[in-house]
Amino acid sequence: METEQRNIEVCFSPALFKGFRNPQAITVITDILRATSAIVTAFENGVERIIPVETLEQARAYKEKGFMVAAERDGIVRDFADFGNSPFNFSRERIEGRQIVYSTTNGTQAIHMASECHQVLIGAYLNFTALCEWLNGQDRDVIILCAGWKNKFNLEDSLFAGALSEKLMATGNYRTICDSAIACMDLWEMARGDLLTYIDKVAQRERLRKNKLDDVIEYCHTFDTTRVIPVLQEDHLKNL
Amino acid sequence: METEQRNIEVCFSPALFKGFRNPQAITVITDILRATSAIVTAFENGVERIIPVETLEQARAYKEKGFMVAAERDGIVRDFADFGNSPFNFSRERIEGRQIVYSTTNGTQAIHMASECHQVLIGAYLNFTALCEWLNGQDRDVIILCAGWKNKFNLEDSLFAGALSEKLMATGNYRTICDSAIACMDLWEMARGDLLTYIDKVAQRERLRKNKLDDVIEYCHTFDTTRVIPVLQEDHLKNL
Repeated sequence: METEQRNIEVCFSPALFKGFRNPQAITVITDILRATSAIVTAFENGVERIIPVETLEQARAYKEKGFMVAAERDGIVRDFADFGNSPFNFSRERIEGRQIVYSTTNGTQAIHMASECHQVLIGAYLNFTALCEWLNGQDRDVIILCAGWKNKFNLEDSLFAGALSEKLMATGNYRTICDSAIACMDLWEMARGDLLTYIDKVAQRERLRKNKLDDVIEYCHTFDTTRVIPVLQEDHLKNL
Repeated sequence: METEQRNIEVCFSPALFKGFRNPQAITVITDILRATSAIVTAFENGVERIIPVETLEQARAYKEKGFMVAAERDGIVRDFADFGNSPFNFSRERIEGRQIVYSTTNGTQAIHMASECHQVLIGAYLNFTALCEWLNGQDRDVIILCAGWKNKFNLEDSLFAGALSEKLMATGNYRTICDSAIACMDLWEMARGDLLTYIDKVAQRERLRKNKLDDVIEYCHTFDTTRVIPVLQEDHLKNL
């Protein structure tokens, strides 16, 4: 008997996510520049747990209770925070064995939004192959939720969604009837040969450049530096 | 002195439109399969005005007042309506000189949503060149609002947005820093050589095929059958 194929869907913005309700699915959150790349880096460097919070007020309240806090909006570190969301801030010396509270412009809101799904994973190029292998080992539909930029579509998250969809489709265990997944696989096919040149076009690169934060772009588009897969457990992220 | 370039933005779903507020812009609504293709056809065939309504209740109330009503949901004509939204229904014999009330799954909601903009135009491949020329003659930003499918991204509207963006950019009078516009211009570049083969991939084709409504696909992807440009005036659409 043939096993039923699992569905892949791609959601281009948290504002569209309620159209993707599927409590049996695994949702992969991605915010390549920079939140999910930073979270994956933090687990590779031994962070114990990350508590994603939606608002700056929540982040500040945790800080007042003595937590280490990473918090930014529009790429700018907030004054009460220990640091912002460059992956380079999450060094082993600073974070190993610690708990961190984390609030970003787009990424942390998306994590909370998906919490009704069967499982919420954090995806980036940095943990790409480990993530694909783990997903393929589960018999579940996959939804890739792009954090976007202030609820708008963005190219860098969509390209990652295309890369992940294409890799999963190649196993033969998945199918898609989702126009977003088809579109981002086609964009990925166009961009993959010279990803960094393609990424030069995206709006977020300009935003980061203005704030002198574009040093992370190459790092955030590097495949497979780690095998960690951050997963949401109740209110915090742990290594799977 | 150099004239300032106008912006092009593309909005992939009515659910994202509030992030695009720009009262000075001209918004082009597109719902290629099939609402905006049908509206353009209706004006080519001499309809006097079209009153777009959001709900079936509103459409039914107009019918009871004696209006001619086109109303469908998910491609199915409603029992109280005179016909649904295939462009082939809007024949000259039937509609010339008449007023029609119109309610569809995605398209008519999008029209109302954009009504705060400077001007709301109806775009389709059928009136492509006339639309481009008219837009290029105005010194205004352009927002292309894709009706999508139940607030999800769809490929056929995005490809049209890519075609329109590319044509306007080629005039030298426009620029874009919108990732959605960049993505759909790239998808258009990929698809334009054999548009109907590419359109075979889209989810809406399957939906139409199931209801035996896919006879319109080739017609709805035909360039420049007319010069009409429907425009929203208060509560109804008129020929510009």
